[in-house]
Amino acid sequence: MNIIRFIEEETKTQTYLIYSDKNNAVILDSVDVDCDKYLDTLNKLNLKLLYVIDTHIHADHVTASGKLRMKTGCQIVMGIQANLDKVDIYLTDKQEVNFDNINIKAIYTPGHTSESYCFLINGRLFTGDCLLINACGRTDFQNGSAKEQYNSLFNKLLMLPEETLVYPGHDYNNRTVSTIGEEKRNNPRLQVKDRQAFENMMNNLNLPRPKYIDIAVPKNLNCGVD
Amino acid sequence: MNIIRFIEEETKTQTYLIYSDKNNAVILDSVDVDCDKYLDTLNKLNLKLLYVIDTHIHADHVTASGKLRMKTGCQIVMGIQANLDKVDIYLTDKQEVNFDNINIKAIYTPGHTSESYCFLINGRLFTGDCLLINACGRTDFQNGSAKEQYNSLFNKLLMLPEETLVYPGHDYNNRTVSTIGEEKRNNPRLQVKDRQAFENMMNNLNLPRPKYIDIAVPKNLNCGVD
Repeated sequence: MNIIRFIEEETKTQTYLIYSDKNNAVILDSVDVDCDKYLDTLNKLNLKLLYVIDTHIHADHVTASGKLRMKTGCQIVMGIQANLDKVDIYLTDKQEVNFDNINIKAIYTPGHTSESYCFLINGRLFTGDCLLINACGRTDFQNGSAKEQYNSLFNKLLMLPEETLVYPGHDYNNRTVSTIGEEKRNNPRLQVKDRQAFENMMNNLNLPRPKYIDIAVPKNLNCGVD
Repeated sequence: MNIIRFIEEETKTQTYLIYSDKNNAVILDSVDVDCDKYLDTLNKLNLKLLYVIDTHIHADHVTASGKLRMKTGCQIVMGIQANLDKVDIYLTDKQEVNFDNINIKAIYTPGHTSESYCFLINGRLFTGDCLLINACGRTDFQNGSAKEQYNSLFNKLLMLPEETLVYPGHDYNNRTVSTIGEEKRNNPRLQVKDRQAFENMMNNLNLPRPKYIDIAVPKNLNCGVD
C-alpha cells in the first residue's frame, strides 16, 4: 500500500491518496481547492481513481468528491448516515471495500458529527475528525454529541492494538502520524476519568463557529458541486 | 508484520519486537533489565526469536542480546563496524536479512557512533539513535562525528519517501512514531542551512556525560554479558 499526503494549508486538512501496487487508488477527505493537484498526481503516476471517500460532511472545507467523479468517473463513498443523494456507495459499520492488496474497513464513529466514520486501511487507522493527534473533533454542531464521541473514542478506537498507526484528518501542529498507544497515554482529551467528565469538557470548549460552515456544509451536501 | 514496543522508562529506550505471521521474531535494541519481559512475551505468543539486533553500541543502557542468545539460541546481528567478538552475523550497508514476510535492510548511518545503523523493516525505518523525533543522536563520544551524522541524516535518511514511518530508539516526550516528511519540516536539528551550521550546532550542545557510559559501553562490547 502506497500513501501520498496532501496538506491544505488554510484548513490544515490532511488528504490521503492511497494506491495499490496495481495502480488503483482511493482518495480520503479531498479538498476542492487541491483538486488539480490530485489529478496531476493521478496522471503522473498513471493511477486509476476508483473511489473518493469522505469521513463525514465537512464544515471547514468543501470536498472535491463531486469534481473528482466528474473528471475520473470514480465512485463517491460515505457512511450511510450521510444520506446524500449523490453518493454512489454507502457503507455501514464494519463493512469493507477491497481492491488489489487494499482492504478498507469502515468504523462508524459518530460524535464529531452524526455521520462520521473512521477507516482502517490495511490496518492503519484514518480517523477523519474523530480522533486527532493530542486532540479530538469538537461536538457542538451538525448533530455532534459528546456522549457519542466518548463511545466512539473509548469503546471503538482505543480498543484497537496499541501499535495501530493513526492518520488524522487535520493537524494544527504539522504532525503526521501517531499510534493508538501514544494517544491513549498522551492525548489530553483521553485522560478524563469517565464519560461525564468527557462530556463536561467537550460541552465547555467554547470554540468559535467554523469560518466557512455556511458555505461548506450546503456544498458538501451536494458532494462539493453547485 | 507485527510490532510490539517495550519502553524502558529510566533511559526511555524503545525496544521493538517484530514478528512474522509464521511466528518468527527479531528484537531491535533490547535492554538487559527488560529481558524477562521479552522472554515472557515470546513465550505467550509462541514466537521463535531468530535474531537480536543492536543499532549500535549503546552508552546509556546495557543490551540484552547476549542473555537472549543464551536463553533462546537466537543470533546476534550488528553492523560490521561494531567489530565485536561475540556477534554472529555482521551486516554491511544495504545488506538484507529476510525471513517469512519480513525484509530487513541495513543502512549504515555513522555519526552518533561510528558503528551506528538504521534498519528499514518492511519499509518502516527504525532509526536507533541516529534520527529521533524532533532531535537526533549526539555526536560527542564513541567516535561520534557531526560531519558523518550530517551525511547520514541528510544524504541517506531524508532521501527516503516522505511517508516513510520513523520508529526512534528513544523518545523523551513519550512519542512513538513520525514520518520522514514530518521530520524534514519540523525537526529543529534538520532546519540548518548547511553542513557547517549542523556541525557547529552539534559540537556546541554541551551535554552532560551519559550517566551509565562507563558501565554500559564495556558490557555492550561483550553483548551485555559479564
